[in-house]
Amino acid sequence: MTVTFESLKRISDKNIVSPKGFTATGIHCGIKHKKKDLAILVSEVPANVAGVFTTNAIKAAPLVLTKQIVKECGKMQAIIVNSGNANACTGTQGYKDAEMMQQLTAEKLGIAKELVGVSSTGVIGEIMKMEPIEKGIAKITPTATLEGAIDFAQAILTTDTVTKNTTYSVEIDGKEIMIAGVAKGSGMIEPNMATMLAYVTTDADVDQQSLQQLLKEVTDVTFNAITVDGDTSTNDTVLVFANGVAGNQTLTPAHPEWDTFKAAFHAVSQDLSKMIAKDGEGATKLIEVKVEGATSDEEARKIAKTVVGSPLVKTAVFGCDANWGRIICAVGYSGATVDPTAVKIQIGTTMVVENGEPVPFSEEDLIVYLKQNEVKVAVALNQGEGQGTAWGCDLTYDYVQINASYRS
Amino acid sequence: MTVTFESLKRISDKNIVSPKGFTATGIHCGIKHKKKDLAILVSEVPANVAGVFTTNAIKAAPLVLTKQIVKECGKMQAIIVNSGNANACTGTQGYKDAEMMQQLTAEKLGIAKELVGVSSTGVIGEIMKMEPIEKGIAKITPTATLEGAIDFAQAILTTDTVTKNTTYSVEIDGKEIMIAGVAKGSGMIEPNMATMLAYVTTDADVDQQSLQQLLKEVTDVTFNAITVDGDTSTNDTVLVFANGVAGNQTLTPAHPEWDTFKAAFHAVSQDLSKMIAKDGEGATKLIEVKVEGATSDEEARKIAKTVVGSPLVKTAVFGCDANWGRIICAVGYSGATVDPTAVKIQIGTTMVVENGEPVPFSEEDLIVYLKQNEVKVAVALNQGEGQGTAWGCDLTYDYVQINASYRS
Repeated sequence: MTVTFESLKRISDKNIVSPKGFTATGIHCGIKHKKKDLAILVSEVPANVAGVFTTNAIKAAPLVLTKQIVKECGKMQAIIVNSGNANACTGTQGYKDAEMMQQLTAEKLGIAKELVGVSSTGVIGEIMKMEPIEKGIAKITPTATLEGAIDFAQAILTTDTVTKNTTYSVEIDGKEIMIAGVAKGSGMIEPNMATMLAYVTTDADVDQQSLQQLLKEVTDVTFNAITVDGDTSTNDTVLVFANGVAGNQTLTPAHPEWDTFKAAFHAVSQDLSKMIAKDGEGATKLIEVKVEGATSDEEARKIAKTVVGSPLVKTAVFGCDANWGRIICAVGYSGATVDPTAVKIQIGTTMVVENGEPVPFSEEDLIVYLKQNEVKVAVALNQGEGQGTAWGCDLTYDYVQINASYRS
Repeated sequence: MTVTFESLKRISDKNIVSPKGFTATGIHCGIKHKKKDLAILVSEVPANVAGVFTTNAIKAAPLVLTKQIVKECGKMQAIIVNSGNANACTGTQGYKDAEMMQQLTAEKLGIAKELVGVSSTGVIGEIMKMEPIEKGIAKITPTATLEGAIDFAQAILTTDTVTKNTTYSVEIDGKEIMIAGVAKGSGMIEPNMATMLAYVTTDADVDQQSLQQLLKEVTDVTFNAITVDGDTSTNDTVLVFANGVAGNQTLTPAHPEWDTFKAAFHAVSQDLSKMIAKDGEGATKLIEVKVEGATSDEEARKIAKTVVGSPLVKTAVFGCDANWGRIICAVGYSGATVDPTAVKIQIGTTMVVENGEPVPFSEEDLIVYLKQNEVKVAVALNQGEGQGTAWGCDLTYDYVQINASYRS
């Protein structure tokens, strides 16, 4: 029987150091005023690593460094992450600083620097303060404890209001395989690919090329299907570490239980994506838009993402206004093939549009539905078999407030 | 000597009925609670008409009707416009209602219905209340007065806070030619083409095909270069009426003074575009982004529009935050060809980025500049000769407020 990602149950008391052989922690080193701002994740052995990175032409120095490791070496043993400064648009000094972070971490751990990745998130265009980083790396000590995992999750945050973690367990080759993820999101969220930082750990033994392929495939329907504000950041990174400590047969698509691993990986990615969307800057609600009947899955995702990204839809959801006109309008300008007379739209369980025309419904009932903290919109196009889902959040006063004063 | 659009001076005391042979007015008929909601513009003779319309796959009924006239007949003598209801997604009844508006207006004026266009703007998905429309058309009486022009400009507004008018005069074949425009904008402004209603009147005699070609060309660098929220409406329409009453030789690109007419038309279109951007929903500031050194004019416009449309740039401008990191980030994700190490960015007259790296500047001086109601950003790419400009506005609490409660 095939395991589907929808059938898997999240394990609420596990975290990124639950897969065997991982340690992590986070501390305050002094880039931010008070909050934790330096995090480290380490595998006891070099792990096969896969990564997807921002499509922005302007790429932060640490991202360039980390991307190169994934591409050229395919193995990583540790990642050092700072928040508060993105180390982006910082020129040659920025590269030197990223390399210094890598070097210091490698020395601290006694491993080759080619096995250390670097991520940064925060303000763009400010030269890194390296003194606190140096002191921080000297004292940071990762552990395989819940506390370590929580500290890591906190230290990578910027304007996020909550930490984002998820863990699943599956059996492969008779061994328990754990797969866990941690992420930060909040602003500049228009992942094409993934506009945020996310790290997935697993003790499974997974072939590096198969892992990279799987990450790309799953990213398209998870991290790439969320949007907060349409701004694609300079620093977005998803990294997956598979250290093989569980002792299964190396996973590739040819392995009989590949689909089981894939399902668990999909579940982790989707959970983190929805958590990021829900915790978008200033957001009060998660919005899910599901499109079916499009000419292709790609077109369905395009429509879903256009609707969930529309500022007018986002403000209407914030205002609990069942303004389906803005939904159908966004369907129309998505650029996908649409027959206006065939469109059906459902908000929650209430049908509001059929054959492109309004159907009577109770505004009162829909207001009650829209007051919940998760709002689902379903769009049916009757054009083909394509389907896709995207996640986003409402647009609120707080989004404006947060971003009108981010640096001050 | 060639007349350029930049060299022309706006005539502040003229309006859409200043070109000879035009009359207009606007009244309250009862679609809105109190404000004017029905407008009419009439030419004493059938005018050559050119039009550009929304690219949204979902098109409002009146737009479909009006587009057909432009395409099949190329002449129009009157346009009837209502605000408060967009007559979009209203099915077959919507088409019947648009045709009824056309029919009633034609009867009232004693002209063929094929010479009457119809526009609607407002809420999507509500069936038109036709009784107030019928009564309104029966009593509406256009005049060639300033009052008539003002009433027209007011009656087409939705959430706009100000009317939008501009007029220029040029001499062609020794005759004075007037060209005037009126527009409404505010929300759902992501014109690709033009996300709003705009009407341009001129007493020039202009060949219809030449006029249509000119409109398309100028729309690309004016109406299509503005954005408020990225939502492309179902109803966007720009119509140009050239009634030939001035008595010049028919203008085509072969006419020796074609460039003079083109300059005046460009000036009208750019004025209206900037007015729409500046009066975007909730906006406190006009933002102008000028890009040069791109690989093509098209790429330059794409970058300019991406920057001016970025919610993070828009909120930073609202907050008077010289956050150039968000500007360079938007340049990077615009999809255009960018060499990160060659980018220069100027805010007002202050250089903030050179060779993709921060340059020291006075934050205090820039805050003073950002407090003005027009903010200019210049981006130089050093990649080629392409240049382009886009206009938008800041993203404010009021935008959220207006759109979280639009229908209620």
